[in-house]
Amino acid sequence: MRILGIDPGLRITGFGVIDKTGSKLTYVGSGCIKTVDGELPSRLKSIMDHLNEVIVQHRPDQVAVEQVFVNVNPKSTLMLGQARGAAICTAVLNNLVVAEYTALQIKQAVVGKGHAKKEQVQDMVKRLLQLAGSPSPDAADALACAICHAHGGLGLGGISTAGYRMKRGRLV
Amino acid sequence: MRILGIDPGLRITGFGVIDKTGSKLTYVGSGCIKTVDGELPSRLKSIMDHLNEVIVQHRPDQVAVEQVFVNVNPKSTLMLGQARGAAICTAVLNNLVVAEYTALQIKQAVVGKGHAKKEQVQDMVKRLLQLAGSPSPDAADALACAICHAHGGLGLGGISTAGYRMKRGRLV
Repeated sequence: MRILGIDPGLRITGFGVIDKTGSKLTYVGSGCIKTVDGELPSRLKSIMDHLNEVIVQHRPDQVAVEQVFVNVNPKSTLMLGQARGAAICTAVLNNLVVAEYTALQIKQAVVGKGHAKKEQVQDMVKRLLQLAGSPSPDAADALACAICHAHGGLGLGGISTAGYRMKRGRLV
Repeated sequence: MRILGIDPGLRITGFGVIDKTGSKLTYVGSGCIKTVDGELPSRLKSIMDHLNEVIVQHRPDQVAVEQVFVNVNPKSTLMLGQARGAAICTAVLNNLVVAEYTALQIKQAVVGKGHAKKEQVQDMVKRLLQLAGSPSPDAADALACAICHAHGGLGLGGISTAGYRMKRGRLV
């Protein structure tokens, strides 16, 4: 099974593709979509176009999207939501099932504890996928999201949007 | 010129289509897209599918989207952002130019003052488009957004995303 993990953002959207064969995980590809400054519609279009290219190129079976950090600034949260909407819509338009995981769930699945640092996530992603070098932070988060999904989302399996809650301005 | 106005929301997305011939505005159609409770991806897909139907049916030349109310609750803001992202993506995928207006701009364009009540907006939409009855609040907001765009967005013309600011949790 091929999994596409997405870490959405209006400025940078990370993506990572892995293969799951039995319990073995293999790295396929990863990268970042950077949107230039400009009007919102053209930035959302850029996210859609690039993610679509990734989907067409790698043909994932399932998609896992990180439940984004809820910023303290509502304007930023709205922007993030719009980028996230664009990412999910691209997957849905390609008839792909979308699972969602909070940062806490992803860190627990990859590092073993929910409050792991970004560097620990990068390091574990590198180890688990036997990479020669560390992927960029956004690509690492996307790969971690894919790994979390491959692990069955902490045993919860499949879609897990329900039941998250707010804590100090973050979704947990 | 045919204009599609959209008032996005995760539960209810209002839409309204008007024709502008010279300075004359004519009502074409309006309605609401209600998404049932369920997983986020399927709700976003429902918004996209229905808006796409509206676009295919009415073939608008331009789209105007209301800059949504920024809720005090970040979770709701994120949800709104995602619904808004889905709406804008649908327009962009149909190669339509998208303009954005804040609620304040729309009320000023339609009622003449930015702090008009919902009922005043409904009433003015009814008068300006010579409707027999009042449209539903969500459809009225979408039609008001289209009217605002038809009026050249308060003389600012075209796209007007830049320059809004926050005031008591709302975008103004």
